[in-house]
Amino acid sequence: MTSRHTSFLLLIVVGVTIYDDGVTANPVHFKPLQNGRMLATEVPRSKTALPMLTKSNRPSCNGGQKDPPSRVDTTQRVANLREQMKKATLAAYIIPSGDEHQSEQVAAPDERLKYISGFSGSAGRAIVTMTQQALFTDGRYFLQAEDELDCNWILMKDGEAFDPNELEWLGMTLLPRSRVGADPKLIGAETWLTVSNLLQYYGLEVVEVEENLVDLIWKTDGRPDYVSDPIFIHELKYAGKSWQDKVEEVRNIMKQYKVDMLILTALDEIAWLLNLRGNDIPYNPVFRSYVTVTLNELNLFVSTTKIRNNVREHFAAGSVKISEYNNFWAHLATVTGIVVIPEASSYAVYSKIKTASRFIEPSPVILMKAQKNEVEIKGMKNAHVKDAVALCDFLSFMETEIALGKPWTELSASRELSRYRAMQEGAMGDSFATISGFGPNGAVIHYEPSLETDANLTSSSIYLLDSGGQYLDGTTDVTRTIHYGEPTPLMIETYTRVLMGHIDLATAVFPKEILDSRVDILARKPLYEIGLDYNHGTGHGIGMFLGVHEAPTNIRTKGTGSPFQPGYFFSVEPGYYQDHEFGIRLENIMMVIEKDTKYSTKPMFAFEPVTLVPFEAKLIDTILLNKMQCDWLNGYHEKVLNVVGKELLTQNRKEGYNWLETKTKQLHCSAPGTLTISLLLLLVTLYISTIHQRY
Amino acid sequence: MTSRHTSFLLLIVVGVTIYDDGVTANPVHFKPLQNGRMLATEVPRSKTALPMLTKSNRPSCNGGQKDPPSRVDTTQRVANLREQMKKATLAAYIIPSGDEHQSEQVAAPDERLKYISGFSGSAGRAIVTMTQQALFTDGRYFLQAEDELDCNWILMKDGEAFDPNELEWLGMTLLPRSRVGADPKLIGAETWLTVSNLLQYYGLEVVEVEENLVDLIWKTDGRPDYVSDPIFIHELKYAGKSWQDKVEEVRNIMKQYKVDMLILTALDEIAWLLNLRGNDIPYNPVFRSYVTVTLNELNLFVSTTKIRNNVREHFAAGSVKISEYNNFWAHLATVTGIVVIPEASSYAVYSKIKTASRFIEPSPVILMKAQKNEVEIKGMKNAHVKDAVALCDFLSFMETEIALGKPWTELSASRELSRYRAMQEGAMGDSFATISGFGPNGAVIHYEPSLETDANLTSSSIYLLDSGGQYLDGTTDVTRTIHYGEPTPLMIETYTRVLMGHIDLATAVFPKEILDSRVDILARKPLYEIGLDYNHGTGHGIGMFLGVHEAPTNIRTKGTGSPFQPGYFFSVEPGYYQDHEFGIRLENIMMVIEKDTKYSTKPMFAFEPVTLVPFEAKLIDTILLNKMQCDWLNGYHEKVLNVVGKELLTQNRKEGYNWLETKTKQLHCSAPGTLTISLLLLLVTLYISTIHQRY
Repeated sequence: MTSRHTSFLLLIVVGVTIYDDGVTANPVHFKPLQNGRMLATEVPRSKTALPMLTKSNRPSCNGGQKDPPSRVDTTQRVANLREQMKKATLAAYIIPSGDEHQSEQVAAPDERLKYISGFSGSAGRAIVTMTQQALFTDGRYFLQAEDELDCNWILMKDGEAFDPNELEWLGMTLLPRSRVGADPKLIGAETWLTVSNLLQYYGLEVVEVEENLVDLIWKTDGRPDYVSDPIFIHELKYAGKSWQDKVEEVRNIMKQYKVDMLILTALDEIAWLLNLRGNDIPYNPVFRSYVTVTLNELNLFVSTTKIRNNVREHFAAGSVKISEYNNFWAHLATVTGIVVIPEASSYAVYSKIKTASRFIEPSPVILMKAQKNEVEIKGMKNAHVKDAVALCDFLSFMETEIALGKPWTELSASRELSRYRAMQEGAMGDSFATISGFGPNGAVIHYEPSLETDANLTSSSIYLLDSGGQYLDGTTDVTRTIHYGEPTPLMIETYTRVLMGHIDLATAVFPKEILDSRVDILARKPLYEIGLDYNHGTGHGIGMFLGVHEAPTNIRTKGTGSPFQPGYFFSVEPGYYQDHEFGIRLENIMMVIEKDTKYSTKPMFAFEPVTLVPFEAKLIDTILLNKMQCDWLNGYHEKVLNVVGKELLTQNRKEGYNWLETKTKQLHCSAPGTLTISLLLLLVTLYISTIHQRY
Repeated sequence: MTSRHTSFLLLIVVGVTIYDDGVTANPVHFKPLQNGRMLATEVPRSKTALPMLTKSNRPSCNGGQKDPPSRVDTTQRVANLREQMKKATLAAYIIPSGDEHQSEQVAAPDERLKYISGFSGSAGRAIVTMTQQALFTDGRYFLQAEDELDCNWILMKDGEAFDPNELEWLGMTLLPRSRVGADPKLIGAETWLTVSNLLQYYGLEVVEVEENLVDLIWKTDGRPDYVSDPIFIHELKYAGKSWQDKVEEVRNIMKQYKVDMLILTALDEIAWLLNLRGNDIPYNPVFRSYVTVTLNELNLFVSTTKIRNNVREHFAAGSVKISEYNNFWAHLATVTGIVVIPEASSYAVYSKIKTASRFIEPSPVILMKAQKNEVEIKGMKNAHVKDAVALCDFLSFMETEIALGKPWTELSASRELSRYRAMQEGAMGDSFATISGFGPNGAVIHYEPSLETDANLTSSSIYLLDSGGQYLDGTTDVTRTIHYGEPTPLMIETYTRVLMGHIDLATAVFPKEILDSRVDILARKPLYEIGLDYNHGTGHGIGMFLGVHEAPTNIRTKGTGSPFQPGYFFSVEPGYYQDHEFGIRLENIMMVIEKDTKYSTKPMFAFEPVTLVPFEAKLIDTILLNKMQCDWLNGYHEKVLNVVGKELLTQNRKEGYNWLETKTKQLHCSAPGTLTISLLLLLVTLYISTIHQRY
C-alpha cells in the first residue's frame, strides 16, 4: 500500500549548518534550547568519550619516526599568538582558512591558517587556547594535515561520524565565562551567529577582535604583500552578456524582493557581474573588492591603483562609482532602507548594517552566474577541447618518455602539463594547484607535490592527476588515473567500479524536481557493493573563467541539495583511496541539458560530458561493466577521438593523435556466462560436425 | 578537483513542513518574515496565476457526462456546516482527515472529511468558506477525488510543482482579519503553530473551535458510534518483550533527556508499548487511548468498558493507573515538571500544557517500535510465509477460474482473498482495504472497489492487487500486477522497468549514514530513462501486528529522510500508472540487515525481501534486464518456491503448489547481441562442419 507519512522527525533548525565540508560533514544542527534541555544526541559528550587526535594518537607523532618532509614547526608562532591572546584576555582564538570574502582559495597574505599551523589545505579551522591547539578539517585533508602539523597540534577529524566538532571541544576545554576571540571579517554572518548562540550554551562568550591577531605577529615575520596587477576586462565575446544587462537583471530581482540595496562580497560574483577579472588570488581570476547595488547606483570598492583607463571606459555607459577598497566599511555605516546581506558575507558586514535594514538572503547572483548563457556554453566547450588537447598530448609525451626510462616526478609532470596548457589559445594559467600524486601520495585526496614530497613516476603504482586550466573562454577541471606498469587486481577492480559509478551518474535522466544531492548514490553504488566508499563529494559546480568550485551544485551524501538547471556545469568525480597505497579518481565536467525521452510525460534533465579525455583500458575489468556502461564508454571514446583527435591534428600534434587513437579503441564487454555459452555452443557444434564426419 | 562548499543556500526554517504527503509533497518551508518581506518564490502568487481546479476545469464536471458512480452530493451537508460557521463567525473551517490521535486510518465516526466532502481517501484536508469549498490531496488520490467530490468542490492537487497550497489559497480567498476555524484536537501542534504563523502573514486569524462543527451537524444525520470491543493482550510469545521492559527503556530515555513526563497520543505507540491490541479502528488493531508516563507512574486513559480482567491482570505487576478516556484532558491541566509532547500530538494537547513544561520532541517510542526484536522478526517472516500461501493459492484458484470463463470482479476477488487469508493461523483480518483495480481502475492509486465501480476481471487488461493481512505475529502488505490475456508492449515495457527499479532498490548496499530518502532514485531510474515516473512514495515502514504504515521509514523524492536500522521493516513499491488505462505496482516488504561485503571497510546495510510471491513472467521483457537483475529474479523465485512451496504442500494446497512451480520457472535473460553472436557462431560452425563433410 502506498504511503503518505506526516513526517515525525521534524527538525526545528534555528541555527544553520556551521561547517559543511562535503561528504564528510558532521553539521551541527541544533534545536532551540527548551528549558535548558537538548536532545540526547546533541548533549555534549563526556571528555573521556572524545576521540581526539592528541600527540599520543597522531600516528606520525608516536616518537621514533622521522618528521614527514612537509611538516612545519609552528611552536614559536603559536607562542607569539598566545602573547597577543593574553593581552586581549582571550581564552581561545579561532583562525579560519578563508579571507574576508569567504574565498576558498586565498591570496598569500591571507594564508593565516597555514602560517599559524603549517596546514596548507583549502578548508580548515584552527583553534588555539592557552594550553592546546587544534586543527579541524575534513576527509580530503586528513592525511595531509597529519603530515603538515607539528606534534603540538591536535588533529580533529571533523566530519567523521563520532568526532566532536570544534564547539563541543571548546565547550569541554574552556572554563565557563571564558572569552573566545575571532576576526569578524573572516567568519560568515550566519556562522558567527550560530557559533555565538551555541557557545553561550557552554557559558562562553564570543568576542569580535577587530585587529587580526595573526596579522599582528605575522607582520614582523615575513608576511607577503597583496599583488597589485591591474584589473582587466572580460570581453563580451566571452561573457555573452554586458555588465549593464546583468546589473539590470539584478535590479529587477531587487524590485521583486522590494529591497533597496544588495551587497556583494563574493569575489567571483563581483567579477562575473561586472565582466572584469584580476590576478589577486592564485588560480582564480578575481580581484579583492566589494560592491553595493541600489536601483540607480553601483559602488565598486577596490584598490583604485588596479583600475586603468580601459576599465573606466568599460564603465562609462553606466552609473558606477569606484571607491577605495577600505572605504566600503565607512559606506556601510551610512546605508538606509532594506539591504540584502548575502548569507555568505562576513559577520563584520552584517554587524555594520542597522538591524532594521538587514535582510539575509542568498545572493541572487549565485544562480544567475551558475546558469551559463549560449556564448558561455560555447566557450566552456571550446575550452574543454583545448584543455583535452593539452592533456592528451602531454600524457602521450610522458608515457613515451617513461617507457624509455626517462626520469619523471610528480612535480616535473605538473610543471610540464602547465606548459602544455599554456600553449593553448586564451590560456590564463592553471585553475588550481595540480594534484599530481603517485602511489601513496595519490591517496592524499588534495595532495599537492612539493620539493619535500616529490615522488618519481615509475611503473610500480598508480598515478593520479587532477588538474585544470583557466582560459578566457572557460575553466576546466579533469582527473585521470594512470598505471605505467602492471596494475594489481585491487587497482583494476576499484578503478572499474569508480568508472561504473561515474558512468551511472553521467547517464542519469531525472525530472527537474530532483535535487542535485539525490543523484549522489548512483556514483557510489558500485563501490558500496564491495564495501568501499570515498571520503569526499561526488561533484561541484564550476565557473566560466572563474572559480573551479562554484555554487550551487554540490553532489554529496548529506544535505538537502539544490535544483539543477540547464546550462549548469559541474564535475562528476567518484574515487577510491587505499590509504598509504594509491588513489583513484575519474573526473569529468558535465553540462546539464534538457532531455527528450521515449514517452516524455514530464520534462527531464540529463548530463552531457564536456571533458573529453580517454579512460585507461588497462585498468578496466570489462567483465564487471554492464552493456549500458560498456556502450557509453565506447560512445564516449568515439566522441573523444572525433572531437579532440581532430583538434590534435589541426594543431599538428601527430604523436598525441596516435596515442589518442590507441587509447580510444573500442572495448568488447561481455559477461563470462555469455562467453561460456558461446564457447559451449561452438564445442557442441564442432562435436556434432565431427560425428557427422565420422558417420 | 574535489570540493568543499560552504552551503550558500541555507534555509532558516523556523516553521516546519506542514503537509508532508510522500513524493508529491510541496512542503511549505518559510523564513522568518524580515521587515515584512519574503523571498520572491515565497510571495503568494497572483490570483490569476492559480491553477485551481474549479467546476469549469474539473474534467468530470464540464456538463453532459453522467456523474461517476462513486460521487457523493454533499450540498446539503456543506450548507448545514455554513450555518454553524455563521454562528461561530468563521470565514473558513478546516476539516482534516485524521482523528484526535492523528491516525491515518480512522474509526467510522471520525470520518468527518468523508462525511462533508464525499472523499474517502486516507489523506486530505477540506476547507470550506462561505462561498467556496476546496479539497486538497496528493497524487495517489487525484483520480479518486475527481470521482467522489460533487461539482461544487474545487479539487486542489496539492503537491504538484506549481499548485498553490491551502494556506496560499486561503490567503487569497479571504479578506484580511477573517477568522479561520479548526478543531485543535484534529491538527498536530507543529502544524497548527506553523499554519497560524503563516496565516498571520495574510492577516488571518486561526481560531480554536472546541466543539467540532462537523460533529454538530452529523449527530442528527446518522453519525455511527465508536465500537466497544474489548481490548486484548498481545502475548509475549509474539511481542518478544514485556510491557514492563519497554516502559523501563522509555524511562531510561526520559532520564537521559532529564524530563519528567512523556505523553503518548499515537495509538500504535500505545498498543506496542503496553502489548495490547484493540478493534477500534478498521484494519489497525489499536484502541482509542492516551498514555502519560512518569518515572514511577503510567496513566492509561481509555474507555474502561473495554478493559476486562485479563488486561487488569496483565498490568498487575506494575504501577499502571487506568482512567476514563476523556479524563485525559483534565489530567493534562495538572501536570508539572518538564513534559515531552511528541511532535505529532494535537494542538489541543500542546495548548493544555503550561508553557514552561513544554518540550516538543519526536516520541522515543517511534524508533523503539520500528526496530523489531528477534521474536518480532521471526513473527514477521512467518506471517509473510502464511500470507504468501494465502495469496498464491488464491491467485492460482482465480487464474484457473478465469481461464474457464467464470465471472470474477474486483469485489469478489477482494472478498475471496480475505477469506483465503482468514484461513491462515493467527489471522486477524486485512491490514487495509484491498486495492483491487482492473484496467482503468488500477490507475487510481488508492482505488477501493465499491458496488458502483466494481469491474469484471477479464483477459482484456491488467489487474492490480494491493492487499495485506493482520496476523498475531505480523502485518503484511503486498502488491502484484497480473494480466490474464495478452499484455500490450507498453504494459510489458513499464512492468519490466518497474520490476527493474524494484530489484535495483532491493539489492542496494550502502553505509549506515545514508538516509532512507537517498535510495529512492534507484527505484525510479529505469522509468525516468523513458520519461516516466510514479506519483507516490517508493516505500514506507510497516508495523508488527500494527499499522501498515509506520514511521520513520519513508522513501521518497523529497525531504531529508531518516536513518535505517537493522530490524526495520518497510515496503519497496515502485509503480507506473497510465491514467484511464491501467496501473502497475510491484510491492515487497523488506527487512534491513547488516551486510558483509567483499572488503568491509565500513559497516554496510542491505535489504532482505520478506514478501515471497512470484512476479509475472508474461509481463517481463527479459532483454531489458541486466545480468544482476535477472540473477536476482531467478534467485528470488527459487526462494519463493522453496519456502512458500513447502508451506503450500504442508497445508495440502496442491493446485497452489503447481501454480507456484510454473510461476517460479527460471528465466533466461540475455542481450540480443549475445544471442545473435551465439547463433552466428552456431551457423558458422555448422557451415564449417558441412564443408568438412563435403570434402
